[in-house]
Amino acid sequence: MRRAIALAARGLGGTSPNPVVGCVILDPSGEVAGVGFHAYAGGPHAEVVALREAGGRARGGTAYVTLEPCNHTGRTGPCSAALLEAGVARVVVAVSDPNPKAAGGAAVLRRHGVVVDEGVLAAEAEEVNAAWLTYVRAGRPYVTWKFAATVDGRSAAEDGTSQWITSPEARADVHRLRAESDAVVAGIGTVLADDPRLTVRLTAGVPAPPRAAPVLRVVVDSGARTPAAARVLDGEAPTLVAVAEDAAVPAHLSPHAVRLPRVPGGIDLHALLAELHDRQVVSVLIEGGPALAGAFLREGLVDRVVGYLAPALLGAGAAALGPAGVSTITEIHRLEFAEVTPVGPDLKLVLRPKSPVFPNPVSSKSSGPQSPKES
Amino acid sequence: MRRAIALAARGLGGTSPNPVVGCVILDPSGEVAGVGFHAYAGGPHAEVVALREAGGRARGGTAYVTLEPCNHTGRTGPCSAALLEAGVARVVVAVSDPNPKAAGGAAVLRRHGVVVDEGVLAAEAEEVNAAWLTYVRAGRPYVTWKFAATVDGRSAAEDGTSQWITSPEARADVHRLRAESDAVVAGIGTVLADDPRLTVRLTAGVPAPPRAAPVLRVVVDSGARTPAAARVLDGEAPTLVAVAEDAAVPAHLSPHAVRLPRVPGGIDLHALLAELHDRQVVSVLIEGGPALAGAFLREGLVDRVVGYLAPALLGAGAAALGPAGVSTITEIHRLEFAEVTPVGPDLKLVLRPKSPVFPNPVSSKSSGPQSPKES
Repeated sequence: MRRAIALAARGLGGTSPNPVVGCVILDPSGEVAGVGFHAYAGGPHAEVVALREAGGRARGGTAYVTLEPCNHTGRTGPCSAALLEAGVARVVVAVSDPNPKAAGGAAVLRRHGVVVDEGVLAAEAEEVNAAWLTYVRAGRPYVTWKFAATVDGRSAAEDGTSQWITSPEARADVHRLRAESDAVVAGIGTVLADDPRLTVRLTAGVPAPPRAAPVLRVVVDSGARTPAAARVLDGEAPTLVAVAEDAAVPAHLSPHAVRLPRVPGGIDLHALLAELHDRQVVSVLIEGGPALAGAFLREGLVDRVVGYLAPALLGAGAAALGPAGVSTITEIHRLEFAEVTPVGPDLKLVLRPKSPVFPNPVSSKSSGPQSPKES
Repeated sequence: MRRAIALAARGLGGTSPNPVVGCVILDPSGEVAGVGFHAYAGGPHAEVVALREAGGRARGGTAYVTLEPCNHTGRTGPCSAALLEAGVARVVVAVSDPNPKAAGGAAVLRRHGVVVDEGVLAAEAEEVNAAWLTYVRAGRPYVTWKFAATVDGRSAAEDGTSQWITSPEARADVHRLRAESDAVVAGIGTVLADDPRLTVRLTAGVPAPPRAAPVLRVVVDSGARTPAAARVLDGEAPTLVAVAEDAAVPAHLSPHAVRLPRVPGGIDLHALLAELHDRQVVSVLIEGGPALAGAFLREGLVDRVVGYLAPALLGAGAAALGPAGVSTITEIHRLEFAEVTPVGPDLKLVLRPKSPVFPNPVSSKSSGPQSPKES
């Protein structure tokens, strides 16, 4: 199953609005006969790829799948049928499918005499699919806030200069983060101050995920102030400008504007995420600035924080994070370090809320006479 | 030599104003015959401890010493004489002694026919003795700035509350840092706001270094405003209050006050460090607050930064670091991550300036017919 999870991860960034899925097929003697992963929406499912490689060796064998095989006919036929046709005797599933349209694969397999085990390495498999599971279960995209700062938490010097606090290696890593997201979100403050392009510019040699569509650029701009000359409107990728319902939208913004309810301080971020969910955006990356990040945090809408810390000190200048609804220490936003890795001379920190914003239920179910566990 | 350096480190916190030194003696067949380290000022030197353990096995053997053996008679006799008397044939030295009073040991040994190699693993041995080498070479104490903050660089919430941002594990580690320092320094702002004790309170079971004197508490208080009831004056450890030369010093501060030149923004920190050097303070720990830390940094007087980052976000409240003389990005204080370690749920970062404030010259000298290097 570990191998199937690693295979699943290779689909990150390409499969939206589908989940990432990995599959390993063993022949009856326990030898690996075929492997596969779901690479892009509309492409073959992991099980189909693995079964194709396994051929006749799948008969009487075991399939390890990170997500319950689908039972519906979309752009591809149901995987449950493909597994039955191939004569697989046992299917080991990490995570049961929470998608009502796709669920039911396990039941169908069982009805046809296949032994199905569920919940094996479920926590690890949930993690690789965290974005999609949040999308399906919470009905909103998975939200990552990214920041770059000095160890004293500043993202710019006193005079506003900030190029460059972090290293080229850290900046390249940010583009990989963007490439794995369906949308990149910035506030109007950042657009006016830095005029970012918000496109994915991968380092030469880094393969781009085979996306169905380029990464959507989103500007949170309640007053519809994004200038016509802003780089974010350069046409290199689609752009959505989220304006307040009562804003006067200039002509150059009309093709991009989506009107959302106004709340104190800006637009309703829950409504923004619902809108993005409707557009099949599974994951969003909040890139700036401090006020927008603070607003998402205050609303309990941050699932993951990725920080790039430069080994440097400023002592003055813009803070990485603006007001986030905390006035006294007991209201502090507690998280956990999930990963700490050096990136060039910098440090990359990945943090997750201590109590997940949208908890992923992990349960272990089993059927059949035997329910062997992976060691 | 690695073992000798590890032994030397065991003396950290106890040996001021002496260096830490470790020694390993091999008998002529290359077997370890004796080991030792300098544990406290006035106690036996590392070489003497190791020679005592080795006894007759030292004759014709090799001594690995992290610092050039001393050649002067202080509270103990010269180590060069002890090594000669024991009949050691070869002495391998990591760092040559920069102390004019003690230097000359290598020359004496050579004159008596002992093969002396210098510069072996010098960089690592310099690191363990960084405080003392800075003390001797720069004529001022080695300065460490310690801070505790959220990953967005805040040390208190908006209303000033800060208990506790970091974990009990991180706070215990701070007491170890204090125990390894000769003085702990805080600004008057911190004394008035938090009323800290600034004493070493080690966790039960953690052995305290055998110090000649308790850790000195220092308050930087140009206006002589430290209240009589301040905990820092509780008598549990000696306290120095650094006031401006023109300050009106109240009676309760007289026994503690030292007058120093006034500069814009406070007292002259160079003069403070010179004063501490005169009092044989080898290392100081700057504990707060942001303004004092910024002033030390601005003056180029920080040799090491130790940060405890809690996996938490505040978005508002006091910053860990105040103005540090940086107004635009090109003036940023660049450092390097030297260590990144988890401490409980928190992250401990150790940073050093990219160009050392006081560079330690590392050279390799050798004498004698052979100059074998450690692998």
